[in-house]
Amino acid sequence: MENLSDKNITIVGLGLIGGSMAKAITKNLKVKNIWAVDTDENTLKLAMEEKVINCGYIDPKYPLENSDIVIICTYPDTTLKFIKSNVDYFKSNALITDTTGIKKSIVEKINNILREDTIFIGGHPMAGREVSGYKFSNEDIFKNSEYILSPTDNTCEKSLTMLTQLIKGIGFKKVTFMSPDIHDKKIAFTSQLPHVIACALINNTGLEEDTSGIGGSFKDMTRVANINSNLWCELISENKDNVLKEMNIFMEDLSNIYEVIEKNDKKELEKLFEKSSMRRKGIDDENTNC
Amino acid sequence: MENLSDKNITIVGLGLIGGSMAKAITKNLKVKNIWAVDTDENTLKLAMEEKVINCGYIDPKYPLENSDIVIICTYPDTTLKFIKSNVDYFKSNALITDTTGIKKSIVEKINNILREDTIFIGGHPMAGREVSGYKFSNEDIFKNSEYILSPTDNTCEKSLTMLTQLIKGIGFKKVTFMSPDIHDKKIAFTSQLPHVIACALINNTGLEEDTSGIGGSFKDMTRVANINSNLWCELISENKDNVLKEMNIFMEDLSNIYEVIEKNDKKELEKLFEKSSMRRKGIDDENTNC
Repeated sequence: MENLSDKNITIVGLGLIGGSMAKAITKNLKVKNIWAVDTDENTLKLAMEEKVINCGYIDPKYPLENSDIVIICTYPDTTLKFIKSNVDYFKSNALITDTTGIKKSIVEKINNILREDTIFIGGHPMAGREVSGYKFSNEDIFKNSEYILSPTDNTCEKSLTMLTQLIKGIGFKKVTFMSPDIHDKKIAFTSQLPHVIACALINNTGLEEDTSGIGGSFKDMTRVANINSNLWCELISENKDNVLKEMNIFMEDLSNIYEVIEKNDKKELEKLFEKSSMRRKGIDDENTNC
Repeated sequence: MENLSDKNITIVGLGLIGGSMAKAITKNLKVKNIWAVDTDENTLKLAMEEKVINCGYIDPKYPLENSDIVIICTYPDTTLKFIKSNVDYFKSNALITDTTGIKKSIVEKINNILREDTIFIGGHPMAGREVSGYKFSNEDIFKNSEYILSPTDNTCEKSLTMLTQLIKGIGFKKVTFMSPDIHDKKIAFTSQLPHVIACALINNTGLEEDTSGIGGSFKDMTRVANINSNLWCELISENKDNVLKEMNIFMEDLSNIYEVIEKNDKKELEKLFEKSSMRRKGIDDENTNC
């Protein structure tokens, strides 16, 4: 069991995820120092006033030179730029992790940039809200959620154990290990496809006239249509091939149901609905609340 | 303002909706009698023991002969059969309404069956759960929900006012009037299409391997995939043409997004996401909780 109490941790990017990370660590774990790096001085000041962090920095030099763990909570592109321009500052043997929703390109690129004496493990906290910014950050968003870690063949066991321990310690219910490649394939289906579907559905011109007759099914299905455009454009274009592949499969599945309905094949339609009911119950049983 | 306290009301079919109706009426309204007709004697007994109804009947003759308002809470096909086989029993000037999720075929067929001296108004409570049966019934499922009524050119104002008053009285937030034709077109998009999408999405073979990496977006999007197969087969095949039309439009919209992603046109993709965010916020503002 790794001891975190002698570790300095730096959060880079004090937004919804970074802020929630800092709050969760301060609330649940005993660490030596929890620092934050952000471009917005007011956010850093607020986080210090709220005793969420010990100290906030605009210039990352000092916290990076002295941090054993660095959690980067910015968009994919910013994450890469940050590591590139600060690669010399990281403490020797520092464990660095990101929180972006794509892994393959990120992990490859970062491992090419980073120094040999630092360790990077890609991470994806499967938690979020339809809002962004520190003011919405809250450690509760992690409760009962899943956190995906993408170790590579070179990832050392000790660092993986420490990171897993930290993640469980801040409230995540489940930590899943997935190669960057598998992660991106999976997320294209379980996360990016649903966002695209929600967007297509709600942009339907029919809704321009009026929004009466909208029930719970439509609302739940389009919840994520209220999307962070910049972030999701980045995520989807970085995972383009997988997303397009999943969209094709989905449109094919939908066409098959179309034919079943067109043929008025009630037996087959019932079968499809029975299968979907069984599947959906299964998900609730396996991942309750996460 | 119509006085309901001298009215006998009969609920036909004491399932999730019928049971919730009976409970909501008993709890919130002063009526002369609330009766129920069901094929299951135990359910009727239980509802009487729970003081949800004054009396339950297997044979509909007596309650129909003495009811001013009859609310039929069965599947579309059963609703038609029930009215057909009991058409002579209805009290003269009785107000009859259904609660099925389709209207055009139902309203037309019922108006052709019913006696001249009875009034029918099609209705659709936009409330439900992924469960069925009296044991799950609860008046709370109506809270903050929308109820669609489908009057025709012959619908008398007085009956429409009385029914609206009853619906508001049992907790529905909003009553919307829609012609049967408009209702079916709208519901094909706002309700039946989401159910078909959820079913297509969750039946994806990828889920056979494992269900890790499933986040909130996927869960919300597939909630209604846990579906009442028999009921939804009936609803969709009765509204086949509208459902197929909406499926076509949706698949076209999805293909357009596919092209945008394929071309890596970030500007256009951002535009689409910004539009969807604005639309989704709009729905929350307009139909909060309903």
